[in-house]
Amino acid sequence: MSEIDVLKMEIRAFADARDWEIFHTPKNLSMAVAGEAGELVSEFQWLTADESRKENLSAEKLKAIKMEIADVALYLFRLSDVLGVDIALAMREKMKINETRF
Amino acid sequence: MSEIDVLKMEIRAFADARDWEIFHTPKNLSMAVAGEAGELVSEFQWLTADESRKENLSAEKLKAIKMEIADVALYLFRLSDVLGVDIALAMREKMKINETRF
Amino acid sequence: MSEIDVLKMEIRAFADARDWEIFHTPKNLSMAVAGEAGELVSEFQWLTADESRKENLSAEKLKAIKMEIADVALYLFRLSDVLGVDIALAMREKMKINETRF
Amino acid sequence: MSEIDVLKMEIRAFADARDWEIFHTPKNLSMAVAGEAGELVSEFQWLTADESRKENLSAEKLKAIKMEIADVALYLFRLSDVLGVDIALAMREKMKINETRF
Repeated sequence: MSEIDVLKMEIRAFADARDWEIFHTPKNLSMAVAGEAGELVSEFQWLTADESRKENLSAEKLKAIKMEIADVALYLFRLSDVLGVDIALAMREKMKINETRF
Repeated sequence: MSEIDVLKMEIRAFADARDWEIFHTPKNLSMAVAGEAGELVSEFQWLTADESRKENLSAEKLKAIKMEIADVALYLFRLSDVLGVDIALAMREKMKINETRF
Repeated sequence: MSEIDVLKMEIRAFADARDWEIFHTPKNLSMAVAGEAGELVSEFQWLTADESRKENLSAEKLKAIKMEIADVALYLFRLSDVLGVDIALAMREKMKINETRF
Repeated sequence: MSEIDVLKMEIRAFADARDWEIFHTPKNLSMAVAGEAGELVSEFQWLTADESRKENLSAEKLKAIKMEIADVALYLFRLSDVLGVDIALAMREKMKINETRF
C-alpha cells in the first residue's frame, strides 16, 4: 500500500473510532479544509516574505505552522478517502495540465 | 524515497523549470493553499450533504473536485518542501495530539 | 434605514427574484464567503507587499480586486441578513473587545 | 458621511493608534480576510443545513458567529479603505453584472 493510502487508513480508523462518519460528508470536509487553510494563512499574515522563510522562523512558529499544515492535510486526505480520489494521481494529472498552461 | 517525497521532488522540478522560486516564499504559498481551498469549498457550496456524496456526484463534478483537491495538495506539498516539513510525520503528530483531545 | 440595511434589502430582493432562498442557508453562505475570500487572496498571492499597494496596481488589477471585495461583501451581508446580525453593531462590539486585547 | 465610511474611519483610527499601518498592506489584509473567513466557515462545518438556521442556533453559537462575521467585515472594510474602494458602489456594480449572468 502506498504511503498516502496508509495515512488515509490511519485517519479513517481515527474517525471511525469516534463515530465521526456522520459528520464526514464531502461537503463538511471541504469546509474543514477551508477552515484549516484559513488558520494556516493566518500564521503568515503579518510576516514579511523574508520573515516567512524557514531560516527566519522561530522553532515555536515553525512548529505552529507544521501543525496547521498537518490539519489541512488530514482533512484533505480524509476528503479524498470518502470520495475515492487518488491524490497522487490527481496531482500528476494537474501538473500535466499545468505544463501546457505555463 | 517515500511517495510524498517523490511528489515534492516532481513539484520542485516543475517550479524550478519555470523560475518560480522567487514567488514561492512560504508566505505566498500559504496564500495559494488558502486560495485553492476556497475554490474547493466553492464546488460544494450549493450542494446538500447528500448531493455531495460520491455516489450522487456527476462524473464531471467529481472531476472538477478532484482537480481542486490536486491544487490544494500541490501547494501544500510545495509549502512543506520549502519549509522542510515532513507532512506524514506532522500528520501523525497531530493525530496523537487529537487522540488526547477527542 | 441605514446604508448597510439598504444593501441587505437589495441583495435579498436579488436572491428572492431568483428563488435562491433554498440555497441561502447560513451554512451555505458561510461557504460562499470562504470561497470568495479565497478568490480575493488569490489576487494578491504572487504580488510583493509593495506591488499590492494602491499606487502600484494597474487599473485592471484594481478592478479585479474590487469585484472580489464586492463578492465577499455580498455574501457576508446576505449571511448577516438571514441570521439577523447587525454588522455595524457587531464590528463595534468586536473593536471594543480588541481594545482590551491590543 | 455614509455609515460604511464612518466604520472605515473608526477602524483606521484603531489601527493608527496601534501603529499597525506597516502591517496593513493590501496583501496582508487580504490574508487576514481569508483567515477570518476560515474561522467563520469553521463555525458551521459540523452543523447540518437545518442546525445552521437562526432559530436553531444557541445564543452562544450565534454570538460566536456574529464575532466571526465582524472579524471578516473589519478586515474587508480596512482593505477597502487602504485601496480606496467604495464597497457599496462595488457591491452594486457586481449585482448589476450578476443580473445579466443569472
